[in-house]
Amino acid sequence: MISKMLKRTHMCGTLKGENIGENVILSGWVQKRRDLGGLIFVDLRDRSGLIQIVFDKDISQEAFAKAETLGSEYVINIQGKVYKRQSINPNLPTGEIEIFAEELQILSTAETPPIYIKDDDDVSESLRLKYRYLDLRKPSMQKNLIFRSKVANVVRNFLAEEGFIEIETPMLTKPTPEGARDYLVPSRVNPGKFFALPQSPQLFKQLLMVSGMERYFQIVKCFRDEDLRADRQPEFTQIDCEMSFVDIEDIIEVNERLLKKVFQETLDITIELPIQRISYKEAMERYGSDKPDIRFGFELVDVSEIVKNCGFKVFSAAIENKGAVKAINIAGHGDKFSRKDITALEDIAKTYGAKGLAWIKVTEEGITSPIAKFFTEEEMKEILQKTNGKVGDLLLFVADKFEVVYDALGHLRLEAAKRLNLLNPDEYKLVWVTEFPLLEHDEEENRYVAKHHPFTSPMEEDLELLDTAPEKVRAKAYDIVLNGHEIGGGSIRIYSTEVQQKMFEVLGFSQEEAWEKFGFLLEAFKYGTPPHGGIAYGLDRLVMILAQEENIRQVIAFPKTQNATCTLTNAPSYADEKQLKELSIEVETK
Amino acid sequence: MISKMLKRTHMCGTLKGENIGENVILSGWVQKRRDLGGLIFVDLRDRSGLIQIVFDKDISQEAFAKAETLGSEYVINIQGKVYKRQSINPNLPTGEIEIFAEELQILSTAETPPIYIKDDDDVSESLRLKYRYLDLRKPSMQKNLIFRSKVANVVRNFLAEEGFIEIETPMLTKPTPEGARDYLVPSRVNPGKFFALPQSPQLFKQLLMVSGMERYFQIVKCFRDEDLRADRQPEFTQIDCEMSFVDIEDIIEVNERLLKKVFQETLDITIELPIQRISYKEAMERYGSDKPDIRFGFELVDVSEIVKNCGFKVFSAAIENKGAVKAINIAGHGDKFSRKDITALEDIAKTYGAKGLAWIKVTEEGITSPIAKFFTEEEMKEILQKTNGKVGDLLLFVADKFEVVYDALGHLRLEAAKRLNLLNPDEYKLVWVTEFPLLEHDEEENRYVAKHHPFTSPMEEDLELLDTAPEKVRAKAYDIVLNGHEIGGGSIRIYSTEVQQKMFEVLGFSQEEAWEKFGFLLEAFKYGTPPHGGIAYGLDRLVMILAQEENIRQVIAFPKTQNATCTLTNAPSYADEKQLKELSIEVETK
Repeated sequence: MISKMLKRTHMCGTLKGENIGENVILSGWVQKRRDLGGLIFVDLRDRSGLIQIVFDKDISQEAFAKAETLGSEYVINIQGKVYKRQSINPNLPTGEIEIFAEELQILSTAETPPIYIKDDDDVSESLRLKYRYLDLRKPSMQKNLIFRSKVANVVRNFLAEEGFIEIETPMLTKPTPEGARDYLVPSRVNPGKFFALPQSPQLFKQLLMVSGMERYFQIVKCFRDEDLRADRQPEFTQIDCEMSFVDIEDIIEVNERLLKKVFQETLDITIELPIQRISYKEAMERYGSDKPDIRFGFELVDVSEIVKNCGFKVFSAAIENKGAVKAINIAGHGDKFSRKDITALEDIAKTYGAKGLAWIKVTEEGITSPIAKFFTEEEMKEILQKTNGKVGDLLLFVADKFEVVYDALGHLRLEAAKRLNLLNPDEYKLVWVTEFPLLEHDEEENRYVAKHHPFTSPMEEDLELLDTAPEKVRAKAYDIVLNGHEIGGGSIRIYSTEVQQKMFEVLGFSQEEAWEKFGFLLEAFKYGTPPHGGIAYGLDRLVMILAQEENIRQVIAFPKTQNATCTLTNAPSYADEKQLKELSIEVETK
Repeated sequence: MISKMLKRTHMCGTLKGENIGENVILSGWVQKRRDLGGLIFVDLRDRSGLIQIVFDKDISQEAFAKAETLGSEYVINIQGKVYKRQSINPNLPTGEIEIFAEELQILSTAETPPIYIKDDDDVSESLRLKYRYLDLRKPSMQKNLIFRSKVANVVRNFLAEEGFIEIETPMLTKPTPEGARDYLVPSRVNPGKFFALPQSPQLFKQLLMVSGMERYFQIVKCFRDEDLRADRQPEFTQIDCEMSFVDIEDIIEVNERLLKKVFQETLDITIELPIQRISYKEAMERYGSDKPDIRFGFELVDVSEIVKNCGFKVFSAAIENKGAVKAINIAGHGDKFSRKDITALEDIAKTYGAKGLAWIKVTEEGITSPIAKFFTEEEMKEILQKTNGKVGDLLLFVADKFEVVYDALGHLRLEAAKRLNLLNPDEYKLVWVTEFPLLEHDEEENRYVAKHHPFTSPMEEDLELLDTAPEKVRAKAYDIVLNGHEIGGGSIRIYSTEVQQKMFEVLGFSQEEAWEKFGFLLEAFKYGTPPHGGIAYGLDRLVMILAQEENIRQVIAFPKTQNATCTLTNAPSYADEKQLKELSIEVETK
């Protein structure tokens, strides 16, 4: 049934003019077959690329006869000789040459695949996921997965050279206190009890610092049972690091060199160090976002002072209510936004809570604006001065609470840049965002919650504010942002018992509660804890941006659908009664 | 509260005589403090090792005063100068030098730790696991984890250089048909349905071959909910590989170079290639085991032919019942086994199903044996000839069904070698075991089951036996065995639809059953499948052997107990009602 296989000598895509005259054996999939002028032409595909194979009756009657049966996606071996091609195909790296086949082995036939094996097929994502093994045959998907593997390899080797030890932390572990929703795993041996899949190795990596490992890293799966968005998956991969005897500068320094290495080795792009830094406060004020895309301008300008007493009630009322009026200047592009376009922008602003969008166009003919009438000449002059408004510009204003102003204008500047095609995917702009607030006020629970996690260290200079104005305390926390995406973030951790105690107080935990939630870490901290801190990168998102993809499913081999299912394997599925009984659980039928 | 930290300039264990005169800043844990002759001596420990610090009032009154408060496991920074040591300590790599401290920062105090931070403490494993973060401070545990990280790094870099792509496969997936017990994960979004944690990425890696990735690898967590043994954990780590367009020789070739690289780079040991190979049949006949420890002899010898008509009924009856009589010769060590020792060996043989253990000692005075009287002189002569029995030897015999004979004698030869101290941990003997049976007969279910898995390819030369004598069909399967431990195994997979069909028939699956269990893989195989095969190594076990440890918990940072719990974090634990409700499950109270 199975005959002796020809043993491949070359990969299809690597053959070149210099191989002319050589005898080669190739293996791969039939991309296309054409019968032309008594010859059969086959484009043969393997991981490395395509090459043209020619079957000629005069060379081998037998191979020719077999070739006549070939269909798309058949798997074959061929043995033949490399020739210079008559009509060179400049679109193909191997387009200079072709192979005249002397022998053909059909290893596997193929039914007509339900999706085309080419990048520009227009098939639905649901079909792509169901037949993922065919989808992954596409050159773009192969390239993405190879690229991802390369990124991980560069990261690992850099960290290993820097003395980081890769240590595996448990997958079957304890629920995350204060975190997102956990995936639970019923224990058979301990009936009624559950493991949780880790949301991150946070507590374990801190324990590893307590244990003196000093430099830890891991590229590791993490899990969150949250409703999915375009760039979220139930399981995702983190590059996770932690270091001892360090402060912020040490962590930033080694991570900047890591990022430089990744860009250099995977994209051949040299990034300049140090990477720009911006405080959380400045990021919000200038970009309306804590993950600013700094590839373009359109920065926020505060005009509250100018308009606080103006005749436009929307503006003055916002300021009265302790909000603000801010503007962005889409400088030089005013003529590209029609009234209809501006209405579309207003709709977007409204999705972020804005009640409306005010605007001013500066044209050769003067000011065009539905709100111009509310301002004195002096106010208008000051607005233009402050926003640097010139002929050809479009000014967009949002007046509201600070959060709404930031959120709406932050997104509008992105949207405007997108519409103007200013988001150059070949331009990579990194920025550290630092000095995050330590705490957020949770309106629902009416208490402070940790913005990062309860072990994030406050900045020394803000320590005394913990008692008086907790919302003003800045954390030793930092995010690294690439083209408007947060690709990583971390913090220096609290290692002093007193500070940790104070932190729990502010979070409203009693001693007992703190102990119940974090007991084993607090216990560990009693026996000599080094100062430590770390960072975690989202590998999926990082690779997505570097590969210039818009969706993380493009860089994950077997992703879940938006509905958290795998249509390829039909997971999840029903369990049988015996299994559930062994696990001491029942499905609750409603 | 937190003062500006001194920034470490060196690691403790790396300082040498050549650093004398230098000013250094060190960080670490107080291993020991001694007050002697008006001076305070502190052994300071970091990941790299220990060094002696001296506090002298005359150098710094302040540092000396602080040093008086130091206890074990305090975390400190010191700044000082390197001096040649008065009394050299030859047991310490840094024993030539010491640091006279000028400044001391106490970063963290420590309560008295519940276990000593030294390798030879005699504490129970349960305490070690509960305080794992302290246990991991021990030099041996740090060494093991660093070594494990190194092994993984060497493997990854070798495979990457060989064109293997590291691809992550899902953790939330479908239950394994025909496998061990799965860990299940209830789905919230799909009430009543469950994911399973993967027992291995087997099906996904085969899909990746269908998708044309050609060379895949992954170092990945796998899960089996089975009762634990000393070298089993609920979650374990595999080095998983798969290749396309290959046969056994190709896989063995690349894996031999991988193993050579691992031994060379992690232990500086050169192993000779090719690695010895032995068929399953020969392994059983010579060593009574499919994972033979070939560091020593004591091979099995079949004496059935000689004793089939002898007067010892136990022997002749065994042969009549289609069993066998086999012996091992503990050559040259007969005098080291008293009658009591032999009784102990017999007890061991019985745990493997043997009804007894017959023995013959050849001494200067002649034969000593309780069974000598049953044999003719000729028979005894032939036995000694066949077993090469000489003065000083001890022959051990088991007569029973083949399986019992192999199992009992296989373990006795190991036990004898252990008692004779012949298992040299510094000697690493690798052997490939090949030509495994494709099928096993499951007595309970009264059907054939796949010995590896249902996709393992039969050997071409045995294909026709599938119809007539399935138990005789050999598989294209191979294990790699190191010092008697199976460290890896794999197979060439079936990629022909007809052979797969035949295989399912032999396993007793109807079309429908086969489709239900393996539908998505069978569907995938319709669209052009390359010949493929692979291997998976147990990383925990491999590292355990290379690190010369006896228990895999010694090479896992946070292992579970024998009871599948984590006493450090108290996982698993009870879930709250809200969570269970969201997951549509209830705990079944008995």
